[in-house]
This record gives sequence, C-alpha cells and structure tokens, in this order.
Amino acid sequence: MNDKQKKPQKLKARLPRGFVDRAAGDIRAVNEMTAKIREVYEHYGFDPVETPLFEYTDALGKFLPDSDRPNEGVFSLQDDDEQWMSLRYDLTAPLARHVAENFNEIQLPYRTYRAGYVFRNEKPGPGRFRQFMQFDADTVGAPGVQADAEMCMMMADTLEALGIKRGDYVIRVNNRKVLDGVLEAIGLGGDDKAGQRLNVLRAIDKLDKFGPEGVALLLGPGRKDESGDFTKGAGLDQAQIDKVLFFVGIADYAESAGQLAELVAGTSKGGEGVEELNFIGALVASAGYQSDRIKIDPSVVRGLEYYTGPVYEAELSFDVTNEKGEKVVFGSVGGGGRYDGLVSRFMGQPVPATGFSIGVSRLMTALKNLGKLGASEVTEPVLVTVMDGDVEAMGRYQKMTQALRAAGIRAEMFQGNWKKFGNQLKYADRRGCPVAIIQGGDERATGVVQIKDLIEGKRLSGEIEDNASWREARVAQETVPEADLVAKVREILAVQAEDRKRASDAQ
Amino acid sequence: MNDKQKKPQKLKARLPRGFVDRAAGDIRAVNEMTAKIREVYEHYGFDPVETPLFEYTDALGKFLPDSDRPNEGVFSLQDDDEQWMSLRYDLTAPLARHVAENFNEIQLPYRTYRAGYVFRNEKPGPGRFRQFMQFDADTVGAPGVQADAEMCMMMADTLEALGIKRGDYVIRVNNRKVLDGVLEAIGLGGDDKAGQRLNVLRAIDKLDKFGPEGVALLLGPGRKDESGDFTKGAGLDQAQIDKVLFFVGIADYAESAGQLAELVAGTSKGGEGVEELNFIGALVASAGYQSDRIKIDPSVVRGLEYYTGPVYEAELSFDVTNEKGEKVVFGSVGGGGRYDGLVSRFMGQPVPATGFSIGVSRLMTALKNLGKLGASEVTEPVLVTVMDGDVEAMGRYQKMTQALRAAGIRAEMFQGNWKKFGNQLKYADRRGCPVAIIQGGDERATGVVQIKDLIEGKRLSGEIEDNASWREARVAQETVPEADLVAKVREILAVQAEDRKRASDAQ
Repeated sequence: MNDKQKKPQKLKARLPRGFVDRAAGDIRAVNEMTAKIREVYEHYGFDPVETPLFEYTDALGKFLPDSDRPNEGVFSLQDDDEQWMSLRYDLTAPLARHVAENFNEIQLPYRTYRAGYVFRNEKPGPGRFRQFMQFDADTVGAPGVQADAEMCMMMADTLEALGIKRGDYVIRVNNRKVLDGVLEAIGLGGDDKAGQRLNVLRAIDKLDKFGPEGVALLLGPGRKDESGDFTKGAGLDQAQIDKVLFFVGIADYAESAGQLAELVAGTSKGGEGVEELNFIGALVASAGYQSDRIKIDPSVVRGLEYYTGPVYEAELSFDVTNEKGEKVVFGSVGGGGRYDGLVSRFMGQPVPATGFSIGVSRLMTALKNLGKLGASEVTEPVLVTVMDGDVEAMGRYQKMTQALRAAGIRAEMFQGNWKKFGNQLKYADRRGCPVAIIQGGDERATGVVQIKDLIEGKRLSGEIEDNASWREARVAQETVPEADLVAKVREILAVQAEDRKRASDAQ
Repeated sequence: MNDKQKKPQKLKARLPRGFVDRAAGDIRAVNEMTAKIREVYEHYGFDPVETPLFEYTDALGKFLPDSDRPNEGVFSLQDDDEQWMSLRYDLTAPLARHVAENFNEIQLPYRTYRAGYVFRNEKPGPGRFRQFMQFDADTVGAPGVQADAEMCMMMADTLEALGIKRGDYVIRVNNRKVLDGVLEAIGLGGDDKAGQRLNVLRAIDKLDKFGPEGVALLLGPGRKDESGDFTKGAGLDQAQIDKVLFFVGIADYAESAGQLAELVAGTSKGGEGVEELNFIGALVASAGYQSDRIKIDPSVVRGLEYYTGPVYEAELSFDVTNEKGEKVVFGSVGGGGRYDGLVSRFMGQPVPATGFSIGVSRLMTALKNLGKLGASEVTEPVLVTVMDGDVEAMGRYQKMTQALRAAGIRAEMFQGNWKKFGNQLKYADRRGCPVAIIQGGDERATGVVQIKDLIEGKRLSGEIEDNASWREARVAQETVPEADLVAKVREILAVQAEDRKRASDAQ
C-alpha cells in the first residue's frame, strides 16, 4: 500500500497528454487510404514487413537517456536485465536493424513497406501528437539512383491512386551531393569544416519557415526573431551566402543546370550529384513522368542533413484555407531519400538504401479536403426495436435481426433499457438508423411487422411541420408479413441509396 | 558522454527479448483475417474506435509500479510531469476510460470493435511474447443478457466467415452468478468469506491444466506439483468439493439443469444466473443457433474471477498435432463476458457492459492449420533485367516496368549490381519471379524483348535434367516486339495461374 492507493475512489478518466482516441470515421478513412497505398506498392514489387514497437535504445541511434532528462525525444525504459529499450520514433531505424539482423536470409535488393505507429516524447501542443502513424517504403541493397527514380514514380502513382489529380501534386528531387559540392566550392570542404557545414545545413533547413532573407541572416551574421532571441549565424560572407542561396533558389532546373554545373565543377562530389539528378530526370521522363509530376528542384532542403544522396519530397500544390482564413499551398505529405549509412552501422560492409515515409494523418487531411475519402459510405444499422421482454418476443426480435444480418444488411436489436419506447426512437434518430422494425403483441400474434422508413419519415415531417406532421409521416410506415421483412427492408434501403445519389449528383 | 558511448563502433543488430518481426506472409494473413472479422462486426452494427497505446497507469487498474520491481506486468514510465503512464495490457481497460471520458457524447448502447497491439512486461519464453495483437468487440450500456447472446452469435458467425465449418467450433457459455450461487450454497457466501471464494475461483481456473483431481486437491488440502512445490488448498470438505466439481463438470446442461437449479435454490444470485443461462440459450435457439454452435456449459471457468455475469468462450474442436506429436483439441481462440464494474470505476453510476477478445495470432495459427488463409495468393513480381547501364537502356527498362505496373501486373526492374547477369537470374529464382524480361543491345536496336517463362523453364529443366537441360529450357523463352510486352506477359501469367489451379484441384 502506498500513497497513490489512498486517492479518492472515483478515478478520473483522461487521456495521457499528447495522445488521442480515434473515431470511426477516421479509422475507416485510414483503412481505405492505406489499402490503396498498399496496392500500388505491391504492384511495384514491394512486400510488407513489420517490426515491434520496441527496439534497444542503442539500435535507434540514441544512447542512454540523459540522467537529468530521461527519455529526451524518445520514450525509454530499462528492462529487468538492465538494458534500455525505446519505443521507435520512426520506421527506418528498426528496418535497418531488421535487415542487419537477418542479412544472410534476406535476398537483396529488398523492397519492403510498412505502416505503423511511431512515438515522440515531446511537449505536446496543438496538432503535435506523441503517437502518430507513418507509412514507409524502402529498397535496401540498391546502389544506383534508378532505385531513387523508382521511389519518385511510386510516390506519384500513389498520390494519383488516392484520387489526387495530375497538376495537384509534384514530386521534387534534390541531391545532398550537389549541396556538398556547393559547400566545397565556397571553401567549406574538409573534415575541419564539418561544424560550419552543419550550421549551413541547419540554416537552409529553415527556408520554408524564414524565407531567403531569414536564411541569409542565419548563413551570415545571425538572426534575431520577433521575441528578441538571437540565433548565431554560420558566419559566411556575402559571396558565399549568394552561392548557397542561388543553389536552394533554383526554380527552373533546366535553365540553371549549366550555371550549377559550373559552380560545383572541380569539387569531389558535386559533379556526381548533378549527374545523378540528370540521370533521375531522364529515367522518369523515359517512363512518361514529365517535370509536371517529378521535378528536379534544388529548393528541397528538408532532411539534407540526414540523407547521403538524392532526397525527394511529395508536395500537394493545391490551395487550402488555413486556420487564419488565409489561402496557402497544402505542402508536403511525405518525403525521403538515400541513406547509405544506416544499415552499415551494424555491418562490416556498406549497404546502400533509399526510401520514403508518408505522414498518414497529414495525407488523410489532404484527401478529406479534396473530398476523396469516404467514397464507400457506411450505412448505419437498421434498428429492430424491442416492445416486450419475454423470451418468446425477444427470440422473435433476435431472429429478425439475424435474418437481416445474414442477408448482408447492417442491423441491430435495441440493447438498452427498452421499456421506454421513446428512448429507442431517440437512439435510432441520434445513430442515424435508416429503418426501424417494430413488432408489438398484436403484430406478433398475426405474424406481421411494421417497417418504418426513418429517412423518408423525417423528410415528410420536416416538409409539413405545420400540419400534424407526426400523423402524416406515417405514410413512411408499412406493415408486412414477417416473411417479407428482408425483401422490404432491402427495397427501402435501395430507394434511400438512390435518393442520396440523386442529391449528391445534383450538387 | 557516458560509458555506453565508448562501446565498440559496430553495433549488434538484435531484437529486444520477447519481441518478434513479422514477415510478409503473416502480415497478409492477418490483414485478410481481420478484414473478414470487421465485415461481420459491421453487419452487427458495431463501429470501430481506437485508443492510443499509452494510458495513465491508474486508469489501467494498476497502481504505481512497485519500487522494488518496477513495471511488474506492465511497461510503465514516468512522464515529465511526474505522472505514470503504461502501455495498455489489453483493449478493455482503455475502452472503459474512453467511454467514461466521453460519456456525454456517446450514444448508449455503444457497440464498438478494435484491433491493436497490447503489451505484457513478462519474462519472455517460447511462444510467450511481450507484444501481441487482440481483436475486441464490446457493447457498453446494455444491461440485458440479450447483449451477451448477441456476442455469442457474433463469435459463431465470425468463425464461420473465416471458413471454420459448423461442428469444428463451439461457443461455450457459463455464468459467474451461478458459480456465486454454488459457493453460497456450500456456505461460502458473505463478505467475510471473500478470501476463500477467491481461492476457490483460482482453483477451478486450473481445471484445464490439472483436471478434476488436481482441482479437487486445490479445493481441499492443497496440491504438490511434480517439482515438489506445495500449493495451499482452499480448505473445503469433501461435500463442498463435490458440489463445486459437479458444477464445473456438467457436460450436458439440459440433463443437469434441474439438479443445478436445486443446488442454488435459495441463494441470492444463483437462481438469477440459471435464468440468465436459460434465457441466452432460448434466444440463440430462436435465431437458429442450436447447441452444436452455442452451448451452455458450466465447465467454462476461464475469467470467472474477472467477469460479473455471463462468460463465453470460442473453442475450436478439431484436432491438431502438438509439438510432442500428440493429437489435441485446438482449444480456445477467444472469449469474454460481462464486466459491469469496469466503466463504473470512473463514474458515479453503474454502466453495464459485455464484450470479448480474439487472440489474433492464435486464431491465425488455427486458420493456417485448416488451410483457410492465403486464398488470395500473392504472385511474385515479373523481373525486368538490366543488361546495360546507360541512360537510354535504363530508360527503356524503366518504361517497360512502368507499363507492366500500369497494366496491373506486379513488376520490378533489377535494382542490385546488374553487371553480373547471373546475379539477376539467381535473384529471380530466389524471389520466385514468374517471368523475366531481357533486352540487350541487339534487341533494343530492333525494338524487341525476350520474355522468359521462369516457371515453365524450371519445370522443363527439372524434367529433362539428363539432357543438356539449360538448352532445352529455352523453349520457355520467346522474343516479341516491345509493343506486345504487356499482352504476352499477361498471357504467360494466365497460363501459369491455370497450371497452379489444376495442380491444386488435383490434390
């Protein structure tokens, strides 16, 4: 017995901070969406593989939680054998562990995909959750950028399979090696400049947030934000800054390709990076993916710090209205790149790999905005009401309910306190039940049931409200022999479905 | 910097103890299975709802982890605001929290289902995992046992939807109130006997494990196991033991119902329990579920300690061969019951509820045993091999691959080191690719491709192994114009599918 157990008897029901429950609509939408994504990936020859939610902390590339702030960034705990385990914070690090652990059994190149929850031990905030779903695809053991080209085409096909029109999305491609070439060209090559290079990478990663002016400050003397906080700059001079900004500011690659090649000429990797970009561009064009779908675009800077070669990002280019009422481009729904170092951490040999990750709830939000989800609309159940509680009556209700279900009709018998009939109709109304079945003692004696069309009934009572609506609404009710129950319900549901279709076509 | 970071550079890739990776076949099988289960539940009017993997520890019904052995049974950690959180160990406690937290918005009775991972912080062992999947269905706010009857019918329909034949399963139903009546009848009623009642419950929970003789010892003086360890008994006398064993030993309920009613006559809840059992039996029979499918059976003892009314269990009654080579009944794949106290822990009012849980991997094992999974067999991808690495050649390979994919054919371009062609054919063989596409420089110049039927090729080379097989196998190879690629591949895949069908029909 300890202090906690002396708390008041009644527990408070509350979600842990930063976590959410998911409602039926969202779950069905995610299922619909992930099924379509899976189908595309399967066509591309990818197979599913799943890892557990825990990994040893060292395998995630983090180390022992700092003793002052345990669980910084990840949720970690110590197992009873003293080893630290963490909940995965992405799906890439566990895949790398899986491949390394099963290296002799896995046939390379290995194309795989997986969807799953990942966890971030961060301060929760609006729209920032500590558990969310990612959907990843990776090819391990593929050294050539043709594998990166394939990823870009797969992302494009996926977005189209989800109903996003050509022109409403673009896959943008950049290459870390070109950036390295630019950095070398401005005198930031060599091991001794690693720190400064990192500062440059972090500065350009803020391009979306602060724009070119803000990034110029971060590359140069430093930047003071609105609250007065000062971020130290990377200390580049104006000529250096201009070259970096030229690179990340290229809008038309074809037009600037010559100038870019010139800039990185003579660097160790820059030329190779430009060649890779050109090769990817040519491959996808051969397969019919022009630059309106897959675009070489050096302004893609997200993740350049992490990746080792090509990086790519899927951006939705249509406008949405944000919470401030402004029109903004929807933006990124996923991205990835080549990470040749991640598997090799475990191995004595290099293992090239490339892959990308979709943010599931962000993509779902986009699809909802476009009205591309919920096509397979769920019909609420037919309600078999309960008028009597004896075993004979209940048995009949149960039998009718099972007959409807067996015929493929969503149906339920009322399971609450049936004694107030009003409760049952209120339940049917709130739940949106399309049809109610009613059988009292008289009907039971003559073997008939009343079938009430609740949608039509509601419409009628709405239209003629001034005129004893409840009585008029009765035209939406019929009495049929029990044997005709299923056929009659099916008929009413079909008419309702047609009405809905007509109404939606008319919009 | 701390000690851990001074470890050798090369990390060891290893799964945490008690966790497993899931391979493609298992993932596809679970997806196929859960889709069928969902369809049945939806027909019954159930909607999905999901909770996060974490709950506050107190909401799970556990308290602060014991300071000597942290995380006993559950995985727990302290959040940065000092609150303890735990990974859910089942799907019921989180549902209770969800309903209590959203009580005003939820329309009762509330039928829901959900599949998800649960976690047990236990010593891992063979077949004992620390993360596994459950699939639950619950009705909250349904006071009558007609809701329990519905659960039993839904379990029966689910097993049949999964392809388990009538006669190969049975849903067994018991009632905690009847057991309470038996205990009262033998003098174990009243608050002061709570401890002894618990001992009796725990003893009969061992019925599967130790049989009636072992349980008799546990009910009486105590039992010594093979290792010599002694478990103290509940201290009942022989007459008391006989009555308990009579109850849990009833094989034919109809035959023994009278004797049972007599035994519990006059107790506060026993009669009510018997009536409930009879009512459930009558309801399911009215709906066409006879005792070969749903059977009143007081030998169901699992979980009696936890539930407050009816308990039910889905048992597969066909034989399987266990690891010792013995024929055994497959046994339980899921179960549940009425738990009227779980939601009310959070509320000032009673909230009746009933539900059951399926052990997903156990049910999957059963279905695999019956050959009921993998009906929608996955075809491995067609392999477009790579003979040349220039942009023109690669572009053509890429285009062919995309053309196949666009036509709905699973296809991939070889992504490994293509320079040794033998590697590519070895890859195709290990991966089980049905067809390989080959285009060298000469073929490219004349706009044709070679299409190799790898299945037929393998068969031929197997049949005529003594006779220069590799040359003969060439009959399984054709050269067609590039424009006919998709049509020809489709034709070969269709012939292969027909061969497979013929072979499987012939078995």
